[in-house]
Amino acid sequence: MKDLLHWFDILGVIVFAISGTLMAHKKHMDGFGVIVLASVTAIGGGTVRDLILDVPVFWVQDNSYLYAILIAAFFCILWLRHKHYFPLRFLLIADAIGLAFFNIMGVQKALSLGVPMLAAVVMGTMTGVFGGLIRDVMCREIPLVLKGELYATTCIIGGSLCCLLWSLGLDAVFCMLLGGATTLILRLMAIRWHWHLTVFKT
Amino acid sequence: MKDLLHWFDILGVIVFAISGTLMAHKKHMDGFGVIVLASVTAIGGGTVRDLILDVPVFWVQDNSYLYAILIAAFFCILWLRHKHYFPLRFLLIADAIGLAFFNIMGVQKALSLGVPMLAAVVMGTMTGVFGGLIRDVMCREIPLVLKGELYATTCIIGGSLCCLLWSLGLDAVFCMLLGGATTLILRLMAIRWHWHLTVFKT
Amino acid sequence: MKDLLHWFDILGVIVFAISGTLMAHKKHMDGFGVIVLASVTAIGGGTVRDLILDVPVFWVQDNSYLYAILIAAFFCILWLRHKHYFPLRFLLIADAIGLAFFNIMGVQKALSLGVPMLAAVVMGTMTGVFGGLIRDVMCREIPLVLKGELYATTCIIGGSLCCLLWSLGLDAVFCMLLGGATTLILRLMAIRWHWHLTVFKT
Repeated sequence: MKDLLHWFDILGVIVFAISGTLMAHKKHMDGFGVIVLASVTAIGGGTVRDLILDVPVFWVQDNSYLYAILIAAFFCILWLRHKHYFPLRFLLIADAIGLAFFNIMGVQKALSLGVPMLAAVVMGTMTGVFGGLIRDVMCREIPLVLKGELYATTCIIGGSLCCLLWSLGLDAVFCMLLGGATTLILRLMAIRWHWHLTVFKT
Repeated sequence: MKDLLHWFDILGVIVFAISGTLMAHKKHMDGFGVIVLASVTAIGGGTVRDLILDVPVFWVQDNSYLYAILIAAFFCILWLRHKHYFPLRFLLIADAIGLAFFNIMGVQKALSLGVPMLAAVVMGTMTGVFGGLIRDVMCREIPLVLKGELYATTCIIGGSLCCLLWSLGLDAVFCMLLGGATTLILRLMAIRWHWHLTVFKT
Repeated sequence: MKDLLHWFDILGVIVFAISGTLMAHKKHMDGFGVIVLASVTAIGGGTVRDLILDVPVFWVQDNSYLYAILIAAFFCILWLRHKHYFPLRFLLIADAIGLAFFNIMGVQKALSLGVPMLAAVVMGTMTGVFGGLIRDVMCREIPLVLKGELYATTCIIGGSLCCLLWSLGLDAVFCMLLGGATTLILRLMAIRWHWHLTVFKT
């Protein structure tokens, strides 16, 4: 179980590191700072989560996360140097996968620490959303999360489902898989069909 | 006493949640991300304060803050949907009230934890200023706090007054009310008469 | 030893406070918010470091840091009021010195807490880079660290050298001086000869 959580976290870190590197390339940024951007995107959400939950920050004592970022960014850079091009859609999909992984990891970590469900859903959304948010702010983009497309909403739905199943006493791994899959599928559908949630106008 | 502090915090959270929602509307943002912006504005300052003071983050174990944000944002959205318009001044006034509440809550919490007065004033200013700062950065506005109008200064004056009275042994609630009122009135006067503090030119 | 670390920290705080004030002047910002910007630049990096390392935040119980910021910003403002002008190069050099000091302080603090070397280097880079990053984001500049010039790289090289010497059992002060000097000299040379690190194109 603990191993599985570890791999979920590593996977989330890898896709967000890639999304940070892609964004840096798209915005014509360069230099080793690209890896700074990749790192902040990859560990920003989880770091904020761990600080707020007051548990040791996940990447400090365990080097595997930092290695994962370096390796992911390295291969991504290599690929970009040879192709000089990447389909913009990749950035969105990488972001969606990272979103789903981190959302569900955040919910799970909060629940296992006895945080109330409402705060656990917020914690999950925050973990999922913050890495990309910091990435977008640093690159002076309007954060994806504020653009009206279904984004934070997918985290809230997936996270709530995970909490609900958990409260019914179901197996934690099962709750996480279902909650994560729901988040990912909803987000991919939102990308595919440009689902918008309009709260301001009828 | 503890109840009063709780209600002060809730009120600060509500007005900042409204100011976040209004800003999102003004910047033509949409979707559930609006509530993300409202939340970050509302709990950003206090979260940073609690992390630095190393006390449990105020909204994690107590759901009332999150409910307050949801309800405030909900009614604000409802209002905006029907009026399609809001006087810009409302955003400034909501921000001023949040500033005063959060400033004085930050000072009070720091003092009660034995933080030196100078740091307590900084902590109050930070609590008051950070929510709006994050809101403005996320919306790619120049932060209000850097615009030259009397803003951070009102927090520093109100917070210092609160500390001074507290050090004289006066009742904590009285110190807070006077410090908070000073902050709010100074800020409102600065908005009304466009008071500027120029530090760079004579 | 502890005294020396304290003075290193104070010096880093002073130069970053100056760099924050200079940036505010350059961007035609004004008012007491300038000191907010100076403070965030000066203590932002170290605050994030201390939060992640889960040690008490360095400026809360020790007023000397806040006084250092106020005095540095005050004299910098005084100078700018009389000269109405400053060579842009000063901003870059102040930033370089702050970068070197904070980098090495971060590495040292992490190592002394038993953090693995890789994470210690990251912690140093983060301490050095974050103050300026927050400054640039608040001023809506593209962060220096993402601009392709040798920046984060100098921290990584200086920090790795410091770690290496430390692991050989050399005196901590010696490791820090050598690591810090390496960071500073590399960064100054990068500014002087516009050294770029290109990772995306050959």
